[in-house]
Amino acid sequence: MKYYAYENFKNDTDALLEKVSKSFSPDAIVAIARGGLTLSHALAEGLNIRKVQSIRTELYDADNKRDTLTIFGDCGFSNEIKKVLVVDDIADSGETLEAVMQHLACGFGEIEFLSCTLFYKKTSIYEPHFWINEADDWIDFFWERDFKRK
Amino acid sequence: MKYYAYENFKNDTDALLEKVSKSFSPDAIVAIARGGLTLSHALAEGLNIRKVQSIRTELYDADNKRDTLTIFGDCGFSNEIKKVLVVDDIADSGETLEAVMQHLACGFGEIEFLSCTLFYKKTSIYEPHFWINEADDWIDFFWERDFKRK
Repeated sequence: MKYYAYENFKNDTDALLEKVSKSFSPDAIVAIARGGLTLSHALAEGLNIRKVQSIRTELYDADNKRDTLTIFGDCGFSNEIKKVLVVDDIADSGETLEAVMQHLACGFGEIEFLSCTLFYKKTSIYEPHFWINEADDWIDFFWERDFKRK
Repeated sequence: MKYYAYENFKNDTDALLEKVSKSFSPDAIVAIARGGLTLSHALAEGLNIRKVQSIRTELYDADNKRDTLTIFGDCGFSNEIKKVLVVDDIADSGETLEAVMQHLACGFGEIEFLSCTLFYKKTSIYEPHFWINEADDWIDFFWERDFKRK
């Protein structure tokens, strides 16, 4: 388990800002909660985007047969929104990002959605358009570790 | 202008977690974007709350007469949600928080909404239920400063 400190986050987010802004000019950001909240905040400041909204998913195992991923949070985009950056911390299994990207593409066919994460696992079923680090271990993000109560 | 570093944020968020959890057990969090995103993430981890959604406001000055605050983002709460923590970084003028709290109270009369911020200015028209520092200067939050592009 690797501790991912704020300083690492700062450097990686700078690199991600560089990468994204070279080829994409998003009008809005969709943050996947909880994991993508802190990163979305930083990217929104760096890209000067005020239009940030969040979405979240839950895994249900209702019938003990298979898990179902449910998406919560109705996204809404005004007419001038053409390009949207979807933000999460990590593409681990990739299921959340894949489901969210499909959900958004189906709901808003006119909008171009590109995704970004700080970490990407090679075993993920979904590869974000922009990512910084390959994850080969469990990441202990500072926003998880630093605020855990005793 | 005071730089508010991650270390300050970490200490203050710990204090806020302590304060909130002594008297309130929220089932969900509403983050006011952008300012409240990073804090919401930390509080959600600390309070072990997965149900985080965001809302945002914009000030319009359409007719050059007076500014109008518009709220974006439809909040939705499932039936088991009884207590919600509304999170922003600072109660400065207090207009955003006052408008959001009224909006939520009108829309969801059965739910108890309490608010929290890291900073509170004495001149604010709204005082959050929980806050940590009195702000007497402009705060240069790390999420604003650290990701500003040259």
